[in-house]
Amino acid sequence: MSDLDQAKRDLVIANRILAREDVVDAYGHVSMRHPGDPGRYLLSWSRSPELVEGTDIVEFTLDGKKVTDDGRPPYLERFIHGAIYEARPDVQAVIHSHAEDTLAFGITKTKLVPVIHSGSTIGAEVPVWDIAAKFGKGTNLLVRNMEQGRDLAQCLGGNRLALMRGHGFAAAGSSVMDVVRIGVYAPKNARVQTSALRLGEPLPLYPGEIEARTDMFNPSTAEMWRAWEYWARRAGVANLLGDPPKAARPSGR
Amino acid sequence: MSDLDQAKRDLVIANRILAREDVVDAYGHVSMRHPGDPGRYLLSWSRSPELVEGTDIVEFTLDGKKVTDDGRPPYLERFIHGAIYEARPDVQAVIHSHAEDTLAFGITKTKLVPVIHSGSTIGAEVPVWDIAAKFGKGTNLLVRNMEQGRDLAQCLGGNRLALMRGHGFAAAGSSVMDVVRIGVYAPKNARVQTSALRLGEPLPLYPGEIEARTDMFNPSTAEMWRAWEYWARRAGVANLLGDPPKAARPSGR
Amino acid sequence: MSDLDQAKRDLVIANRILAREDVVDAYGHVSMRHPGDPGRYLLSWSRSPELVEGTDIVEFTLDGKKVTDDGRPPYLERFIHGAIYEARPDVQAVIHSHAEDTLAFGITKTKLVPVIHSGSTIGAEVPVWDIAAKFGKGTNLLVRNMEQGRDLAQCLGGNRLALMRGHGFAAAGSSVMDVVRIGVYAPKNARVQTSALRLGEPLPLYPGEIEARTDMFNPSTAEMWRAWEYWARRAGVANLLGDPPKAARPSGR
Amino acid sequence: MSDLDQAKRDLVIANRILAREDVVDAYGHVSMRHPGDPGRYLLSWSRSPELVEGTDIVEFTLDGKKVTDDGRPPYLERFIHGAIYEARPDVQAVIHSHAEDTLAFGITKTKLVPVIHSGSTIGAEVPVWDIAAKFGKGTNLLVRNMEQGRDLAQCLGGNRLALMRGHGFAAAGSSVMDVVRIGVYAPKNARVQTSALRLGEPLPLYPGEIEARTDMFNPSTAEMWRAWEYWARRAGVANLLGDPPKAARPSGR
Repeated sequence: MSDLDQAKRDLVIANRILAREDVVDAYGHVSMRHPGDPGRYLLSWSRSPELVEGTDIVEFTLDGKKVTDDGRPPYLERFIHGAIYEARPDVQAVIHSHAEDTLAFGITKTKLVPVIHSGSTIGAEVPVWDIAAKFGKGTNLLVRNMEQGRDLAQCLGGNRLALMRGHGFAAAGSSVMDVVRIGVYAPKNARVQTSALRLGEPLPLYPGEIEARTDMFNPSTAEMWRAWEYWARRAGVANLLGDPPKAARPSGR
Repeated sequence: MSDLDQAKRDLVIANRILAREDVVDAYGHVSMRHPGDPGRYLLSWSRSPELVEGTDIVEFTLDGKKVTDDGRPPYLERFIHGAIYEARPDVQAVIHSHAEDTLAFGITKTKLVPVIHSGSTIGAEVPVWDIAAKFGKGTNLLVRNMEQGRDLAQCLGGNRLALMRGHGFAAAGSSVMDVVRIGVYAPKNARVQTSALRLGEPLPLYPGEIEARTDMFNPSTAEMWRAWEYWARRAGVANLLGDPPKAARPSGR
Repeated sequence: MSDLDQAKRDLVIANRILAREDVVDAYGHVSMRHPGDPGRYLLSWSRSPELVEGTDIVEFTLDGKKVTDDGRPPYLERFIHGAIYEARPDVQAVIHSHAEDTLAFGITKTKLVPVIHSGSTIGAEVPVWDIAAKFGKGTNLLVRNMEQGRDLAQCLGGNRLALMRGHGFAAAGSSVMDVVRIGVYAPKNARVQTSALRLGEPLPLYPGEIEARTDMFNPSTAEMWRAWEYWARRAGVANLLGDPPKAARPSGR
Repeated sequence: MSDLDQAKRDLVIANRILAREDVVDAYGHVSMRHPGDPGRYLLSWSRSPELVEGTDIVEFTLDGKKVTDDGRPPYLERFIHGAIYEARPDVQAVIHSHAEDTLAFGITKTKLVPVIHSGSTIGAEVPVWDIAAKFGKGTNLLVRNMEQGRDLAQCLGGNRLALMRGHGFAAAGSSVMDVVRIGVYAPKNARVQTSALRLGEPLPLYPGEIEARTDMFNPSTAEMWRAWEYWARRAGVANLLGDPPKAARPSGR
């Protein structure tokens, strides 16, 4: 299987996981940088993530144009993806989501911070991007062109997650497996932080803890594979899983 | 397929979607204005929305009388539908629901306002109708005649959603697809607003944003179809879906 | 089908509905007064409600003794049922449940009150029974004998629902269909009231409204049947449903 | 069936129950002390609990070394288990979990206390272990060696449950059935306590009540079996259930 085919397969798995785990519904999308050309990215055409198959994946240039015009309507907000890839050579995968439990942090002054170990995937700093700051109070809130996408990417900066006021979030990962972890754990962290606010003043993770954990995001370990396999099975796409990384193999069996 | 048959098919899909998405349970209903006669509307007889099929759809005149008396018991509260169609020529579809997450806003002074982009479907202003104001404190809270229906419709005014104190809501849309979006997103918006109140003072959408989004409710776009298709599949009625609108077709395939 | 067989069939349906709707899990139970002998009641032996079948139903005298000793272990807390039947000739069905969303109202000073129309099933007054008041602070909280059962029944008085501090609730209905409605809607009402407390001061239903609705609990209407049928289908026991009452029949079909 | 085979079978059931009841996801694990050698314990290799089968169970010495090196990667945090067995001869089963609803109590000053009868499984005192207290603010929060495991076990002391700040919990039971009850009911108790804090000051169980209930954890009763059977069925492993204890058998059938 070619690198491109593997990338498409993993992107299909990611779409299905995010749908199954309620990170996306009919809306929201996940992309990967093209494995052979950093100036392109892979993203489904305008389909619900739950329905995405390998043949639905389309190649885009970073400015959001299709490499081959095949007549299939693209997502309106694809510019989120290209603008982040353009600004961040380290980023290999991007999610845009409206996951419900993170939204309250986009419309209040309370900052979303990592309070649980799995929540460290969101990074130490989670900026909130308000489209109205630069584009006025009369937009439809969607990121519809590169100018808006670049403004969002600038707000994201070197971070892993940016909330979008009244809308959702954009997450940037070092791999598709990494970005899926942000997608799944950001809402969980938000729920725990919200719940803890009822009980008192939540203690966030210490900066050194966040750093120690960020260093762990190695997709070739047994621990990372375990979740990927688990989520894929729940999403009904275990059949698409390739071989586990060496460290996750029951070599003694 | 005739316009009437298409309307009935779409109304069945709407019933199933609302049941699957927990907008209605055994109670609550959705109607459409008759495509060939604005003085009539289509609504199931007294069945749980989850069970509604095409043959369950009955024609009513706006005052809630069956066009043909077929002996099947109607919903007690059908007057909600007729009274809104009577007052609002622009309205083509109506939902009555007891969706749990909106109810708290009907029994407190806190106003339900759009705080997320999908929540803009509820419109800028959501009035609360209290049946006791005109009909006293001894009703069973149900809308059982045209007088009560008209009072509710008057409270709704030109808006898209009215809460009913201690009871539920009535939603009015420009199409069945449009009204289903109100039904699904009103509870989501309510949950986010409720959650945000724990974190601080929620910032609502700006009026210009609500307006910019309301202009978008065009059922012929790829974006609107995407959700309709997604919800129909989840509800197990993908087989009833007709052809996608032109803009949503993968013409290049 | 004899009255007793019908009663057992309906009791099986009730068990399955309460399990499916999360009113009971492995614990909690529902009983009916014996249709032919008001001095007896019908209740499963020690089985999870989700698994109860007709042959699991056992006859008890009101003091909690089996009419025929068949060697099957009974529920420890069956005394809740007998004590209520003994004190309340009007009661035909009883539920004991630990439904999660009602529990907070049993351990705080906030009173559970009907705030939504379906919540009117809980009645205007919901007392809280504290086993410690009469039996001390060293019980295991279970109602293990008639003395404790009678103390609970006395606290319940003429009401439809009593919360049990740190434990759950006992509900008393005029029919099995009626008591299932209390079981399902008490938690919903509790959730809405809890949620509303975040938004402000919840307005309860007016006394006249509760009364007007209580008068409606007629199991022979299309409206009552609609929910019973819906819940039975969700619980996978639609096949046990008998004929609908006359008012719910599509006689014109 | 040998004691060891029975133990493995019950451990598989426990894994599946905890996965089904959302106590663990891809992460979190449950172990049993070896029935024939108190210096060993049984634990799956690095698999998601939902997927664990009998052949996945591995024997470890208390210091976390495999008795037979079979090449299968172990859980990183297995030291939690061994350290607790080492310190507590009375403990026969251990769970490590990140169950969401308990997490808020690990990052605030509010103490988790039993407020409902099933919550008495957590015991009267639930300490919070903070890895930073002894190991500094730069760990990745995981318990990666015996020194950390022993520090956690010391914090747990003679109790049944210890929360782990920003991470999860460790539960210690007198049997696998007992520890599963802690795992399932600790989150339920946490939810009720959290919810009650919105309504007022929650009244905890009285010490004598907790004691009276702790005395009840006898796995040979009909009541304990009822839940074990119920959970196993929900988890799809009813086929693994052995014979019920004598007290739970329908001997008259």
